[in-house]
Amino acid sequence: MALLVQKFGGTSVGSFERIEVVADKLARAYRAGEQLVVVLSAMAGETNRLLGLAKSVAADPDPRELDLLVSTGEQVAISLMAMALQKRGIPARALLGDQAGVLTDSRHGRARITSVEPEPLRTLLAQGVVPVVAGFQGRCPANGVTTLGRGGSDTTAVAIAAALKADECQIFTDVDGVYTTDPRIEPRARKMDTISFEEMLELSSLGAKVLQIRSVEYAGRYNVPLRVLSSFQEGSGTLITYEDSLMDAPQVSGIAFTRDEASLTLVGVPDEANVAAQILTPIEEGGIDVDMIVHTNTGDGKADFTFTVSRTDCNQACRLLQPVLAQFGIDNLKINQDLCKVSVVGVGMKNHTGVASRMFQTLGREGISVQLIATSEIKISVAMEQKYLELAVRSLHKTFDLAADE
Amino acid sequence: MALLVQKFGGTSVGSFERIEVVADKLARAYRAGEQLVVVLSAMAGETNRLLGLAKSVAADPDPRELDLLVSTGEQVAISLMAMALQKRGIPARALLGDQAGVLTDSRHGRARITSVEPEPLRTLLAQGVVPVVAGFQGRCPANGVTTLGRGGSDTTAVAIAAALKADECQIFTDVDGVYTTDPRIEPRARKMDTISFEEMLELSSLGAKVLQIRSVEYAGRYNVPLRVLSSFQEGSGTLITYEDSLMDAPQVSGIAFTRDEASLTLVGVPDEANVAAQILTPIEEGGIDVDMIVHTNTGDGKADFTFTVSRTDCNQACRLLQPVLAQFGIDNLKINQDLCKVSVVGVGMKNHTGVASRMFQTLGREGISVQLIATSEIKISVAMEQKYLELAVRSLHKTFDLAADE
Repeated sequence: MALLVQKFGGTSVGSFERIEVVADKLARAYRAGEQLVVVLSAMAGETNRLLGLAKSVAADPDPRELDLLVSTGEQVAISLMAMALQKRGIPARALLGDQAGVLTDSRHGRARITSVEPEPLRTLLAQGVVPVVAGFQGRCPANGVTTLGRGGSDTTAVAIAAALKADECQIFTDVDGVYTTDPRIEPRARKMDTISFEEMLELSSLGAKVLQIRSVEYAGRYNVPLRVLSSFQEGSGTLITYEDSLMDAPQVSGIAFTRDEASLTLVGVPDEANVAAQILTPIEEGGIDVDMIVHTNTGDGKADFTFTVSRTDCNQACRLLQPVLAQFGIDNLKINQDLCKVSVVGVGMKNHTGVASRMFQTLGREGISVQLIATSEIKISVAMEQKYLELAVRSLHKTFDLAADE
Repeated sequence: MALLVQKFGGTSVGSFERIEVVADKLARAYRAGEQLVVVLSAMAGETNRLLGLAKSVAADPDPRELDLLVSTGEQVAISLMAMALQKRGIPARALLGDQAGVLTDSRHGRARITSVEPEPLRTLLAQGVVPVVAGFQGRCPANGVTTLGRGGSDTTAVAIAAALKADECQIFTDVDGVYTTDPRIEPRARKMDTISFEEMLELSSLGAKVLQIRSVEYAGRYNVPLRVLSSFQEGSGTLITYEDSLMDAPQVSGIAFTRDEASLTLVGVPDEANVAAQILTPIEEGGIDVDMIVHTNTGDGKADFTFTVSRTDCNQACRLLQPVLAQFGIDNLKINQDLCKVSVVGVGMKNHTGVASRMFQTLGREGISVQLIATSEIKISVAMEQKYLELAVRSLHKTFDLAADE
């Protein structure tokens, strides 16, 4: 008898029909003797509906009230799922985040889980009850309802699995596993049976939307066995592993990408040690994630400083930069709002060389000019004009021999 | 500076426009120096929408899960109202029942408030913040979200007013006060400036829908000054008073009625002391409210036993009676599903006589036959065929001289 934490996303509970399908699936697993903890997102579309209500009332609502509002989405989903299970004779209990012991810090709208008290769930499990837990939410020390930010339900599931020392945390979604790249762009993309934790972490942070990155980080911290599966078809999905078997690891495991990036270049900043901090601190304090960073000494005691942000954050980043520009006496801020980022990822890079040169040869052969480069031990990311995205993904997929067997 | 608890019902927050109207009203009161605690119901229609969702999933959902589901209605309303106040520069804070200190027993779907911890609200008030509290809900000792049953938001407001020793609890609704009877039936009905607590209690229990009876009971227990006003027009509404000034009290203050009553008559039950208990216990344990009760000795050691219930409960009451019928060997159960009840109410009855005879003279003159009679110190209720309802109300309104001055 295994203890499984099973998380279902918004499309998996997006209609009454789908709730019934998932309830059937859960009932079969329960009757087969599994111990289950279910974690749910809001029904698809519901979070956006609630955000729309808020927008109708206030352009810039307080994050505290916004959390209270949008957290109702999961509350509805768990209530309905518990009812659907009870109808099948399965003892089930719907639990809000805090009722399930999920405590967070106080950063409304993007709270982090600080602890999961396992007692409430352990008590229910010992009674043979299936807890159905609202993902995405918790309570903070000041007793306010918090949300974890988009995709936070994955993190809830992983945190609960860690607290309960579950045998596996299973993320049910609308794809049947993790692919070498997005099959909508490269139809020959291959589903991986396993992927290393480090690779999954890079893929998540680089835009593969299968798992939310914070949930992967959380899983890594507690070595939670994590599996991605389809809600709608049978199969073993993709298991995230923690063993480091570098010997037979391929150089490159997958290709990730993000669209809608923007770069900002400050031309002629003083070439001093703390200039990066002076530029980036106001951006990050403004809640904007900075991605790639390049600092180029231009030889006259000056430097060019480039960084990328999500395109939706670009205007706000410009505003936040104004005091810095004034301080440095810079009037030349170059902006490129038409970028994407393509990344190759693989733990095999650690003890193989030549990945970078093969990557740049491929891009050069296709006539794709590289705007920015960022590397880590197990990935190489390249920013390029958005129009090249599909071409780059497909040609790199071929170069690194990632296609499924014909 | 008065401390006012102001409760707004579902129609008062039933649309974005109305939320804005109420927010304007609250902002004016706040700027005029009042200390405010706001209590809200769900937006009109929302509770029914949520019940519909539950019904789509399960015919007979667990009351615990149902509470978790329907309590989201108030959660949405308070979030939006707090945002609307913040937009106007008023510091406001949305609070769930338990965050506002509202604790209940564990009877899901019809919980009773066991206590209101005043500290969370006092702390906010001391900071000049307007708490916006979800009515209708609380948490029970087992940490489950509970609801108080329909109309429970009034009770939340009164309980909070009692805990804070507020200067007044103001129930804003879609009528501008308490009337001598329903103006839709008798256009000359008169709004009362004040009404005694006892009369209000009888009127509420007899079907005048202005205030939920439990909230009136609660107000009486703690002598909470309670006022009914309109959300949509100016005016001082009706104040519920606790002074007993019987001297100048009219014999009859108002006329209440309920539609859709049903009577059940068991013919030929043994005329024994505990027969009423044997008949009514299974009905009340089944959660059905029994209203009028008549026990008629038929002279041969037998009796006829009649009681009334809401028509919607009639079939269920019949089912619950089957074991009792079998036990008594009775096969004659008479059912009348076409009844209404009309009641005259007045504290003046306590020291005046003749109300009953004037009432029955009036009904007799109009040719209305009386099915059942029930009396208390300050009211006389009569069950009659439903078709006589309007005629009875209007003729009694005239007999007791309740009309507004022309």
